[in-house]
Amino acid sequence: MASIRIDPSDATPVYQQIINALRTLLVAGAFGPGDRLPTVRELALDLGVHHNTVAEAYRLLADEGWLELRRRHGATVLDRAHPKATPETRKAFGRRLRELAAEAHAAGLSAAAVAQALRDIAEELTAGTPANAGRRQ
Amino acid sequence: MASIRIDPSDATPVYQQIINALRTLLVAGAFGPGDRLPTVRELALDLGVHHNTVAEAYRLLADEGWLELRRRHGATVLDRAHPKATPETRKAFGRRLRELAAEAHAAGLSAAAVAQALRDIAEELTAGTPANAGRRQ
Repeated sequence: MASIRIDPSDATPVYQQIINALRTLLVAGAFGPGDRLPTVRELALDLGVHHNTVAEAYRLLADEGWLELRRRHGATVLDRAHPKATPETRKAFGRRLRELAAEAHAAGLSAAAVAQALRDIAEELTAGTPANAGRRQ
Repeated sequence: MASIRIDPSDATPVYQQIINALRTLLVAGAFGPGDRLPTVRELALDLGVHHNTVAEAYRLLADEGWLELRRRHGATVLDRAHPKATPETRKAFGRRLRELAAEAHAAGLSAAAVAQALRDIAEELTAGTPANAGRRQ
């Protein structure tokens, strides 16, 4: 779980930072169906946060359909059914991505640097077999 | 100001939605230095929100260097000095963009659809003269 980092200077609540980081790993296929995540206590220790914070993140990811939580058995990654996005969802994400790109540009990244970052992510999303990229057997 | 919409289903606080939308317009050059924004009261009426909410958004955009606020004169767009992003800022935005793309994918947009949205925004950022695009004389 080396790729989860909590950024204390980020205004995003810590449980949300954990969700965002884990969801990104799940989408990238770093964990696949049947994989066990670290227990709440392990991950909390790793990240130096309260275990309730990790428990809340796991609970919300379970609500999203990513994890099955069982008492004493920790969190297991599910074979998540892919929902169908409505046109509104599609539009809302387009807006949020555009706004975040503008925020990055306003924070001092050049338009070219932001565009490059966007293209890199687009490339990662569509290149090869993202569902297995970085998957631990 | 037709392009500002408040989405009540969005978990983002309303003042932050206004900031995000205005910053996106400012970065796109829809308003240039010297332009007057609607008064707090006008915009609040337009959006159907409390005027304190708009005032808070204007105040935070002024803190970011975008606006000059004067009692009775409303908000004037400044010729904002472009800050220099630190490597940490650059990395943080890379992470946030990647996480938002993953969230969109998890919400049901296909990888191809997310990638296309990212490439469209990259295109907008670098094509032509974005600083004048949509600029009202």
